[in-house]
Amino acid sequence: MANRIVNFNAGPSTLPLDVLKIVQEELLDYKGTGMSLMEISHRSPEFDAVNEEAIKLTRELLGLDDTFHVLFLGGGASTQFAMVPLNLLPKDKCGAYVDTGTWSTKAIKEAGIIGRMHLAGSSRDDDYRRIPKPSELDVPADAAYLHITSNNTIKGTQYHDFPEIPNVPLICDMSSDICSRVIDFKKFSLIYAGAQKNLGPAGATMVIVRDELLQKCKDGNPSMLDYRTHAPKKSMYNTPPAFGIYVVKLVLEWIKNQGGLAAVEKVNRAKQELIYGVFDTHPDYYRGTADKDSRSWMNVTFRLPSEDLEKKFIADGKAAGLGGLKGHRSVGGCRASIYNAMTLEGCEKLVEFMEAFKKAN
Amino acid sequence: MANRIVNFNAGPSTLPLDVLKIVQEELLDYKGTGMSLMEISHRSPEFDAVNEEAIKLTRELLGLDDTFHVLFLGGGASTQFAMVPLNLLPKDKCGAYVDTGTWSTKAIKEAGIIGRMHLAGSSRDDDYRRIPKPSELDVPADAAYLHITSNNTIKGTQYHDFPEIPNVPLICDMSSDICSRVIDFKKFSLIYAGAQKNLGPAGATMVIVRDELLQKCKDGNPSMLDYRTHAPKKSMYNTPPAFGIYVVKLVLEWIKNQGGLAAVEKVNRAKQELIYGVFDTHPDYYRGTADKDSRSWMNVTFRLPSEDLEKKFIADGKAAGLGGLKGHRSVGGCRASIYNAMTLEGCEKLVEFMEAFKKAN
Repeated sequence: MANRIVNFNAGPSTLPLDVLKIVQEELLDYKGTGMSLMEISHRSPEFDAVNEEAIKLTRELLGLDDTFHVLFLGGGASTQFAMVPLNLLPKDKCGAYVDTGTWSTKAIKEAGIIGRMHLAGSSRDDDYRRIPKPSELDVPADAAYLHITSNNTIKGTQYHDFPEIPNVPLICDMSSDICSRVIDFKKFSLIYAGAQKNLGPAGATMVIVRDELLQKCKDGNPSMLDYRTHAPKKSMYNTPPAFGIYVVKLVLEWIKNQGGLAAVEKVNRAKQELIYGVFDTHPDYYRGTADKDSRSWMNVTFRLPSEDLEKKFIADGKAAGLGGLKGHRSVGGCRASIYNAMTLEGCEKLVEFMEAFKKAN
Repeated sequence: MANRIVNFNAGPSTLPLDVLKIVQEELLDYKGTGMSLMEISHRSPEFDAVNEEAIKLTRELLGLDDTFHVLFLGGGASTQFAMVPLNLLPKDKCGAYVDTGTWSTKAIKEAGIIGRMHLAGSSRDDDYRRIPKPSELDVPADAAYLHITSNNTIKGTQYHDFPEIPNVPLICDMSSDICSRVIDFKKFSLIYAGAQKNLGPAGATMVIVRDELLQKCKDGNPSMLDYRTHAPKKSMYNTPPAFGIYVVKLVLEWIKNQGGLAAVEKVNRAKQELIYGVFDTHPDYYRGTADKDSRSWMNVTFRLPSEDLEKKFIADGKAAGLGGLKGHRSVGGCRASIYNAMTLEGCEKLVEFMEAFKKAN
């Protein structure tokens, strides 16, 4: 029997135990084929069924119809930082971006390499403690799109209201909070998400793109960087990250079996309420790095009264079976990542530990 | 106990059973961490050790020193078709390419999108039955590099002598035969290989690049498409395809445990001799699609006297536990892919089946 820890890693991060058990069970012989899923041709009926089911479940869970293509590409969200402007930022327009921290900044950098970037909003002067309100944004008339990052793993902020700009397609990096709550996904023209937080293992990137956006794609890009290469082929232009797609499909089934995004949201709401509750009870001891109305439900980031206490908190947590509580190397501090696969029980254990740690230290 | 078939798939393809068993064993708890390898941060000491070991084993098995960077990227070899000219084809030079079939043709197409492509050689007029000899090649003085495809999965041909052009870096797509035999890998300036034939699961691409070539990389590319982004970070600029790297590392260990490439080559030589031996005994029944001196040791491609017989051969093979004998959808016919992980016993079973099938049909 595996001795599993409570895993608060920010990504790659905890996966549903039920999913891992299926992967383990099927590893030498996938559904009676006599082969591992890793050994099966991506052109086979067996793998095609996996890919089709992953697409179908994505649409079903997110409430999207087939005017949205669902792709699984390699290269991570970081490759999407470039693919978005390569495809969708023509010379006579600008790409409008909201800067809410490290990941936005990286997307912004790539847009600047490829075309004309316009900063539509930023919380940089507030040390990224908050998400700019839709009313604060400055989106020019020649914006080809507006790009946002829905959740920020490092500073622990998250959009709770999304901007809507008439006639400007909304593009969102949802790497760290996709499938975690009910939102109107139809508001978006393009969504991308590295799998390694809420969806599966690193190496597969979900890209959801509205069909009408494909008609705006620029010519002249290398084939692998053109969304129009992948959409009609359902990610099968070349060999896709097949094992990753398989695990994503299992995770989507796991979400569906729980009751879909509404059920997942209910648990996620309870999880973050528990932990932020400790902040609000002991505001001088557990100091959140995000403003209250911008708090992330996925990454709870905080400081303790001293760096020595933070080190002890992380080490004692690990000793108590609570792993991955260290903040991102760029900012330090502490962080509990509580993606979909983190259980309510795991969060209860963390809260107990936080209370006990405060009393003892 | 898993009921495994003999798997002749062309890729994704059979993996060493010993490797799959380790993956299965470690799936819920990687080396006592209480997490799956898929759930571990790519910045953790545990994953860093996996990545470092994969790099070290690659250099060791291929006889390369640390002037060669070893990277594991996403996007498949198809992304390398573009990254090579994006990085290494300046405006005032041409990229010289040898066309030996489908995969070369795709690399050539991307070079043409990005810069000036020069066709240095081709066996197109011979229906790609052969590999052009080094002496046939026309590599102009302004060639930035010479690009070849070492093995061709569809027509079943393979380089057995490599061209050497003074002062022209040799770049090779080794997706389908890397680590299968002893060659002088130091002759190459850049080697790339999708993992899903000889190295591991789809989704990780090995890129080996000589350090001095990095100094020639062009500025202005998106970060993820610049080799200089990945080389100093050892593929950790963003979250790499971690699970794929882990399996590649296990496969490289498996190769080392057998005695390295010399030992693997010995088995691979025996395997192909067995099967081609049947062709040479029954040349009118099993008709190879490759000229004798260009035969691939990895993909044995052949036709039978009629398409009906080919269909029966594939179906009867499957019924006898020999899977994946269908030729590539673009050419039809039959194909037995016999990468490193295919055992000699598997090839013996195939040869027995071929003899029995001929007698009966």
